[in-house]
Amino acid sequence: MPNVEIVAIGTELLLGQLVDTNTAFIAQHLADAGIDVYATHAIGDNRERIAAAIGVALARADGIVTTGGLGPTVDDVTKEAVCDVLGVECERHAPTIERMEAFFVSIGREMRENNRRQADVPRGSLVLGNARGTAPGFIATRSDGKFVASLPGVPNEMKTMLVDELLPRLREQFKTTQGIVTRVLHVTGLAESEIDHRIDDLFRWSENPKIAVLAHVGTCDVKIMVKAADDESAHVAIAPLEIEIRGRLRGHVYGTDGQTLPERVLSLLRERTWRLAVAESCTGGRVAAAFTEIPGASDVFAGGIVAYENQAKIAFLGVDAAAIDVYGAVSKHVAEAMALGAARRFATDVALATTGVAGPGGGSQEKPVGLVWIAASFPGGVRTISVNVPGMRSEVQHRATQASLSLLWGILADKEE
Amino acid sequence: MPNVEIVAIGTELLLGQLVDTNTAFIAQHLADAGIDVYATHAIGDNRERIAAAIGVALARADGIVTTGGLGPTVDDVTKEAVCDVLGVECERHAPTIERMEAFFVSIGREMRENNRRQADVPRGSLVLGNARGTAPGFIATRSDGKFVASLPGVPNEMKTMLVDELLPRLREQFKTTQGIVTRVLHVTGLAESEIDHRIDDLFRWSENPKIAVLAHVGTCDVKIMVKAADDESAHVAIAPLEIEIRGRLRGHVYGTDGQTLPERVLSLLRERTWRLAVAESCTGGRVAAAFTEIPGASDVFAGGIVAYENQAKIAFLGVDAAAIDVYGAVSKHVAEAMALGAARRFATDVALATTGVAGPGGGSQEKPVGLVWIAASFPGGVRTISVNVPGMRSEVQHRATQASLSLLWGILADKEE
Repeated sequence: MPNVEIVAIGTELLLGQLVDTNTAFIAQHLADAGIDVYATHAIGDNRERIAAAIGVALARADGIVTTGGLGPTVDDVTKEAVCDVLGVECERHAPTIERMEAFFVSIGREMRENNRRQADVPRGSLVLGNARGTAPGFIATRSDGKFVASLPGVPNEMKTMLVDELLPRLREQFKTTQGIVTRVLHVTGLAESEIDHRIDDLFRWSENPKIAVLAHVGTCDVKIMVKAADDESAHVAIAPLEIEIRGRLRGHVYGTDGQTLPERVLSLLRERTWRLAVAESCTGGRVAAAFTEIPGASDVFAGGIVAYENQAKIAFLGVDAAAIDVYGAVSKHVAEAMALGAARRFATDVALATTGVAGPGGGSQEKPVGLVWIAASFPGGVRTISVNVPGMRSEVQHRATQASLSLLWGILADKEE
Repeated sequence: MPNVEIVAIGTELLLGQLVDTNTAFIAQHLADAGIDVYATHAIGDNRERIAAAIGVALARADGIVTTGGLGPTVDDVTKEAVCDVLGVECERHAPTIERMEAFFVSIGREMRENNRRQADVPRGSLVLGNARGTAPGFIATRSDGKFVASLPGVPNEMKTMLVDELLPRLREQFKTTQGIVTRVLHVTGLAESEIDHRIDDLFRWSENPKIAVLAHVGTCDVKIMVKAADDESAHVAIAPLEIEIRGRLRGHVYGTDGQTLPERVLSLLRERTWRLAVAESCTGGRVAAAFTEIPGASDVFAGGIVAYENQAKIAFLGVDAAAIDVYGAVSKHVAEAMALGAARRFATDVALATTGVAGPGGGSQEKPVGLVWIAASFPGGVRTISVNVPGMRSEVQHRATQASLSLLWGILADKEE
């Protein structure tokens, strides 16, 4: 496969004041077009350093895609740097000047010399039209066939030019028939190292399809990526591997290709026409927020109580004050009472409750920071778990929220214990 | 000034499946510490290519900071690549193994060989502790004094290790005297363009200090950045500008240097010894979650009701069923009734309520998606606002949450109307 490197240009990227999202967009579209990306770079608005970076990358790769530095200001020097690398001069592109003149007339603004300078491109290059702004892009090709393609840095200008102008020409040039198709399995209740342990032999024998494990807070993704000529052959390559992985991670794969845990839980509840309420102490509203973020949640989600102080647990959920005294607010007993209370008070089939020590204060030897009791009441009974989650307060809350979603998903998915 | 390059490691960065936010974070903190960054790179999980990239960058720069590839899986090869560049072997770091063993015991999980492998570091390097995870980082120094510092890729692990472990050592090593000192004013209730309009003359005359306006959802930051030899001269440069900007944005600057709106609200409530409850419909738990994320929230925050269905508004908040029929659930009347009901039921001084159309469905001509009524009841009365917020469901919820925090902050800060 051909391989291309990406060079994002702009001093603001190096000061950390702007997160570069252009590079990921370009990388993904190149991968989809069957072009490998082995490295990306960000360089400031400095002609020598841009030229040096492009030069080094061009020695390794078949081509370079740059983004940024095509604007009208004096610190936009991408074109000059590309000319330096390729040993050519810039020349003004007459059709672009005409288009820009018409554009400036249409918006009633005077066109200045620095605007005209945007129509300069390396001599002999192919000009890429800009449907959303003034600066054209270009593909400058060296005698050995290697190329530098330069796109603007403004995201919507860059995206349109990449998709409509550059990619069709790269597909044509490289005659790429292979693209990358990705299948993602979303996993809960297993640590990254445990997943790795269960499937690492598949990592080793498999170059195409290729497997990657990506950890998030409380969940992991197993990605199966295949280079294939078309969707059908991709699916033929992915299917047996997916079946094998699902078998090894049985009871833990909750969704595929971007589905979220609250989405899956709501959808399983909807299938059974069960309604849901929540009662939260340490998660403080996050479990409710996770469900209510999903469009159409109101079919299934009745509401919730954030019973932060003990008095609220008693008043709104009917938890027995004596039980709080005896077992403590962070206990199996209170978690169950909260879940049962929420189901009763909201008149729902299912209720989910959390109570724990989010920290940083409030921990003890017996009940340390990170201990969370989670209960789910459902028509078959009540299931309760405790988890010990590491991290700062907001991490404990986030992980406890994930664990509660995971518990309820397990019940609804009829997971084997 | 010393200069350092950043190498982010992970094949997922090159497939465009993940936007790299680590690089910007590291770049910003290096700049604040007076260290220049002239280039950053992203490389896949490939030992040869990582080693090549580090080698090329190390020829130019005084040091390299890497992030990613320190995990337990077979495709985590950063350490091996660093060893290749520096011509040393890896060795297992005994104190880290001990720490990891204790950690695995504490979470009740078995420690495997791939976990142990995380304690390997290039021979002779300085180990950087990981306060938030298992993988240690390290600084490996070459005989010519140039270094490679490797941090994990998990953002919170990387951030803590960078700030607490790596930066103090780099400041010490480089004896950087000129750093960039930044003062951030956090602003609510004014659009970016309005802020720009009020202070744009200050942008123009000022190169050092330099001013930047950064928009977030519902809030903006005004950054004043100054290059100075020490903190005192930085403050002398910043102070008059800060006073001028505060004057022009009077009644809208809610905090400085990372303070959050819920933090400020809780702190103002604490000063008055007022307690808070919330009643949420369209924000679905997000307002409660925003408060409960702050350590020590329980002093002030009693709890909340996520009254998602109308029946919950009636049962838990005492909203009149007839009022819902007459005015509709999304109305000034119902928002006020929810706030008053929450204050009464939780017996708090202050209550905040939201009711709106989060979308994508449920909008009408009269009450379109994005219309949200917000009420705050407090000892001086009830204040109610309506907002029309753009965006998708989760954005509407996020903006409505911010608007409710902003309303309550305005009341507590005795903002002029």
